[in-house]
Amino acid sequence: MSLDATLLRIDSDLPAALDRLMELLRLQSISTDPAFAAQCDAAADWLVADLQSLGIAAEKRTTPGHPMVVGHVEGDGPHVLFYGHYDVQPVDPLHLWDRDPFDPAIEETDKGRVIRGRGASDDKGQLMTFVEACRAWKAEHGEMPCRITFFFEGEEESGSPSLVPFLEENAEELKADLALICDTGLFQSTTPSIITRLRGMLQEEIVLTGPDKDLHSGMYGGAAINPIRVLARIVGGLHGPDGRVQVPHFYDGVPELSEDIAEQWQALGFDHRGFLGDVGLSIPAGEEGYSPLEMIWSRPTAEVNGITGGYTGDGFKTVLPSKASAKVSFRLVGDQDPHALREHFRDWVRAQLPGDVTAEFSGIGASPASEMATDHPAFEAARRALSEEWGVEAAFGGCGGSIPVAGYFKSILGMDTMLVGWAKDDDQIHSPNEKYDVESFHKGIRSWARVLDAIR
Amino acid sequence: MSLDATLLRIDSDLPAALDRLMELLRLQSISTDPAFAAQCDAAADWLVADLQSLGIAAEKRTTPGHPMVVGHVEGDGPHVLFYGHYDVQPVDPLHLWDRDPFDPAIEETDKGRVIRGRGASDDKGQLMTFVEACRAWKAEHGEMPCRITFFFEGEEESGSPSLVPFLEENAEELKADLALICDTGLFQSTTPSIITRLRGMLQEEIVLTGPDKDLHSGMYGGAAINPIRVLARIVGGLHGPDGRVQVPHFYDGVPELSEDIAEQWQALGFDHRGFLGDVGLSIPAGEEGYSPLEMIWSRPTAEVNGITGGYTGDGFKTVLPSKASAKVSFRLVGDQDPHALREHFRDWVRAQLPGDVTAEFSGIGASPASEMATDHPAFEAARRALSEEWGVEAAFGGCGGSIPVAGYFKSILGMDTMLVGWAKDDDQIHSPNEKYDVESFHKGIRSWARVLDAIR
Repeated sequence: MSLDATLLRIDSDLPAALDRLMELLRLQSISTDPAFAAQCDAAADWLVADLQSLGIAAEKRTTPGHPMVVGHVEGDGPHVLFYGHYDVQPVDPLHLWDRDPFDPAIEETDKGRVIRGRGASDDKGQLMTFVEACRAWKAEHGEMPCRITFFFEGEEESGSPSLVPFLEENAEELKADLALICDTGLFQSTTPSIITRLRGMLQEEIVLTGPDKDLHSGMYGGAAINPIRVLARIVGGLHGPDGRVQVPHFYDGVPELSEDIAEQWQALGFDHRGFLGDVGLSIPAGEEGYSPLEMIWSRPTAEVNGITGGYTGDGFKTVLPSKASAKVSFRLVGDQDPHALREHFRDWVRAQLPGDVTAEFSGIGASPASEMATDHPAFEAARRALSEEWGVEAAFGGCGGSIPVAGYFKSILGMDTMLVGWAKDDDQIHSPNEKYDVESFHKGIRSWARVLDAIR
Repeated sequence: MSLDATLLRIDSDLPAALDRLMELLRLQSISTDPAFAAQCDAAADWLVADLQSLGIAAEKRTTPGHPMVVGHVEGDGPHVLFYGHYDVQPVDPLHLWDRDPFDPAIEETDKGRVIRGRGASDDKGQLMTFVEACRAWKAEHGEMPCRITFFFEGEEESGSPSLVPFLEENAEELKADLALICDTGLFQSTTPSIITRLRGMLQEEIVLTGPDKDLHSGMYGGAAINPIRVLARIVGGLHGPDGRVQVPHFYDGVPELSEDIAEQWQALGFDHRGFLGDVGLSIPAGEEGYSPLEMIWSRPTAEVNGITGGYTGDGFKTVLPSKASAKVSFRLVGDQDPHALREHFRDWVRAQLPGDVTAEFSGIGASPASEMATDHPAFEAARRALSEEWGVEAAFGGCGGSIPVAGYFKSILGMDTMLVGWAKDDDQIHSPNEKYDVESFHKGIRSWARVLDAIR
């Protein structure tokens, strides 16, 4: 039983695997902030060296942004491409962290041992579960379970500007039979889940300008337009009282859920109350008539991720500012077209501007929603393998997040993607005190060994 | 003609008067920043010594914050109190200054000679016009024109926390027949103006909390309430489409302008177009049916001076934040009660909160509007004196700003206040490259000599 031997090796190698992850977590690979470019580069170098130590032909590939890491290893059976990202989210507000986000540690908690640090879950911890599974397999078998291409990106948290050109330029090299991605979570933190649908994403930054300089609100207040007032009115009007997004044509291409899938989701027994209760809430904030699970998995959203204008420090300054800005993102489903929607949104904003206020828009990311080809035989094989590892029937589920690369793998490389992951709802990804359960890491490595065994 | 002799002496002493002002401007008396406390103290010491050199019994008086300077000098005729403040605004952003803000200089410009430096106009330059007028008078006559109390504050730019207790504790000592304040400007930069009304001020900071931590908008977007959305809807609804403030009872106590005053203001020939055009605007943003001058002088306002929530750095972060906050201020007129209004505003905000969102309020400043007793004979006497100095009919005007000390002089000391000043619209007070025209300083000193002569 070669799988059993591999699983035993994974168990005994866990401390060393954790040490390797800690090395990677110490690299401050925040992709959105140019100040951390050298650290992104160092994370890519670290991964290249680690893959090479497994006998994989790996190299760092430059892009106009942060580098990609690509590695190839031969093997029998199907050719899979594994994708992960080594970049992480910014760490502010830093004062809310209980430790230096880049000085990771294993902590004992009420709920078991956790790896604490930025990227522990998203996505360094997750991507290393696959690498560690390959390491154990290689050590046990002297070769890999199948032909594998490793593909790590360093710009996932900053809109992946280099991804599409890179895929297009290297399509032949990267094309495989199936893509695997480890950047999602366990359903309700307990049940392994194969993601069958991802929401798309549209990001826009708006900067409104009123007066051509900051003014004193005593001298000008009342007569001069305040761009914060205009911006607040616009973004405050994104949602109607029924929770529906008010941008015209927003719901074009949004399908209603099929009865079949609605029933499947019903059967999952999602704990709506606990889901909101865990973050101090009790009232679903989305469209009337939909369950929270539908709000996250099958309904589109509009969200203001950031707003700023005027004086925001301590105390008070009676400034009437020249500018105010907001970062707005939309999660998309079905056939919503992000490019058309961008124009509809800009038109909608412009139509609400008073005469003296101008708007500048910066379009940042735009990716459509994707739905997975669950009839690919690997999906059912993986589902059985995951059910065995976790001792509970694995689920086909949705994901409220956006992993645009899965859509690009399909549209550019013609390749289906299977997304599984071991993150838990309380991992605090993108937030202070991000963690990854040691159990997620350990069982995640074992899960990948089982999945590779099942699909090879 | 003793006034003429005094005016001649002012002219010949101008270079020395400028040198004295430069000494005071070199002291970095930024009151809001504790790092500059010793410099505030030094500015108070400088003023005490300067007053003493005129034979005035002056001393520095401690407070829990920066010291007050109080000086008394006997004389015939009415007893006036002159108020000014020796503290200045912070100087950031420093890189926008063309010279060290505390290394003042006389500069030649297209529009004549200016004194450049922090505090040149607000309020060191202005307060010294009164002191220099007294110096010239004393030199010429051997005594002061009337009994004068000098009262200089060092916390005007940081909310005057010690002012009210100091006035209450020293009411008997400070009470005079009339207060004089030099902290306002020339009407349209050319016409001397006696301020007959000041707007009051109410400041509130609101912090809204939704989820108990920052969330990932992919994981929770749609189901979890975003406090930015709620805050934007609320502050975006502060004004109706007609520009009127929507808080219930907001207009309680707001008087319509009397026909008499409306006609006076009409006659001032205010350049509405130039006023807005100077800051890149063309459309008055206040209530429909009022002129820009009325919007500033006689109408109340609601203004968002700052708003912040979520990720506001470069790039994008798809966070669904736990908190969002805004700093809101109201300029008040007539009999609007700031304390009642604070409660109306808080009630109005609370009534709009969805179930899962809570609000915390911090009330910062609250002062009612004030209207001056223009039937006091000194007002008409001063108006004639100013008209003579400037060669143009002096105006009775309003001021959109808030100078709460005038209200306290009335409510605590039972004393009316006359506000005149020589600042120009382009003095850039509170901003980089603050300046004061040498003409303002010179004619300001002469103006005070004329006013003192007229009202004694």
